[in-house]
Amino acid sequence: MRFIVFEGLDGSGKSSLMKALEQELEKRSVKFIRTREPGGTPLGDEIRNMILRKEGPAPVSRAELLLYEASRAQLVEQVIRPALQNKTWVLCDRFAASSVAFQGGGRGISENDVHTLNSFATGDLKADLTVLLDLSVEESRRRRQGRGEANGESEDRIESEADSFHEKVRQSFLKQAAAEPKTWLVLNAQETPAQLFEKLLAAVQQRGLL
Amino acid sequence: MRFIVFEGLDGSGKSSLMKALEQELEKRSVKFIRTREPGGTPLGDEIRNMILRKEGPAPVSRAELLLYEASRAQLVEQVIRPALQNKTWVLCDRFAASSVAFQGGGRGISENDVHTLNSFATGDLKADLTVLLDLSVEESRRRRQGRGEANGESEDRIESEADSFHEKVRQSFLKQAAAEPKTWLVLNAQETPAQLFEKLLAAVQQRGLL
Repeated sequence: MRFIVFEGLDGSGKSSLMKALEQELEKRSVKFIRTREPGGTPLGDEIRNMILRKEGPAPVSRAELLLYEASRAQLVEQVIRPALQNKTWVLCDRFAASSVAFQGGGRGISENDVHTLNSFATGDLKADLTVLLDLSVEESRRRRQGRGEANGESEDRIESEADSFHEKVRQSFLKQAAAEPKTWLVLNAQETPAQLFEKLLAAVQQRGLL
Repeated sequence: MRFIVFEGLDGSGKSSLMKALEQELEKRSVKFIRTREPGGTPLGDEIRNMILRKEGPAPVSRAELLLYEASRAQLVEQVIRPALQNKTWVLCDRFAASSVAFQGGGRGISENDVHTLNSFATGDLKADLTVLLDLSVEESRRRRQGRGEANGESEDRIESEADSFHEKVRQSFLKQAAAEPKTWLVLNAQETPAQLFEKLLAAVQQRGLL
C-alpha cells in the first residue's frame, strides 16, 4: 500500500488527477481510499468549517495552524494509519506540506515550528509520494472564479486571501519539492488531464510504487 | 499588571478564590479581567464545546491537545496580551499547566511535546503566579457530584474520566509546582474560603505582585 498526497493551489486540478489514479487502481484491483484535509473525519469536518467559513470568528494565525494540525492528528489516527495497516492505498487531497506552504509561507509562521507541529500531529507519518500540481496564481484565480460562476460557490476564507499570499504559498510548494525530489513529483497543471495522468503513472511506476 | 492563573481538579474551589481576589482588586481600584480555558473567546468557546461535549465525535489524544492549544493561541493573542498591554490584570481559570497535567500526565503525551506546543501557542507567555488548589481525587469527585445534583449539570467528557486519570493529573500539578516554587503557590483546597484567600493575599503581597 502507498500513501499519495496531492498538493497545489486551488483550481490546480488535484481532484481530476486523483480521480484518474483511482480509476487506474480500480482497474488493477488495488484497494484504496480517498480523503482530504482539512476534514476527512466527522471531527475534522467540523474543524474544516471553523477554518474555512467566512462568517463567524476567524482564528489568529497560530490558532489556524493548530486547528489544521488537530484535524490532521484525527485523520492520521482514525483513517490513514488504519487504512495503511489494512494494506489499502491512501490518496489524500492536501497534507502536512500544505501547512508548510499556507501557514509557513503564506502566514509567515516559522517553518521550523510548522515542521514540529506536523511531526507531532502525524506521529512522523510521511507520504510515499507528494504530487505538486504547479499553477500560477493568476491561472488559479481564473479557474477558481470560473468554478464559482459555474456552481454558485463563493470563495472560502483561505481562497479569498490576496494574490501575494497565494504567490508565497506557490513558492513554498516549489521549494519543498526541490528539497525532496525523491518523494515529490512536480507537474505543470496547465497540461491536459491525459498528459498529467500519463506523467503521474510513469513516475509511480518508475519509483517502484506500483 | 499581573497574569494570575488558577489550577486544580474540578471542584477544588478555583471560582470562589478567583471571586475573592476580584473583590480585593476592586477594593484597590486595580483594573482586571477574568477569563478561562478552554474558551474565553467566541472561537475558543466553540472549541471548548468540541473538547468537552460527551455527544459527537471525540478527539484522539493528540487532536485534543491541539484543540486546547488552538483555543489558547486565540485567547493569548485576542484577550490576554491586549489586557496586559493595557495594564490590566488577567485572572485565568486554567492555562498551559493544565495541558501538562491533563494531556501530559493524564493522557500520557510526552511532557516535552506539551511544553513545545504550549510555547508555540502562547508565544512563551508565562503566568506571574500559578495558584494550585490541591485536592484529593475522592474529594474532587464528591464535590463534583454534589454540584451536579445541586444544579442538574452532568459531568463533561474530561470530568467523567476514571479516578486513575485524575490522580495522574493531580500528581502532575504537584510536580510542576514543586519544580517552580517561585511562580507557583500550592494551597490545600480543604481549607475554608477565608483561609485560602488570606494565604493567597499574603503570598501575592510577599512576592511583590500587589
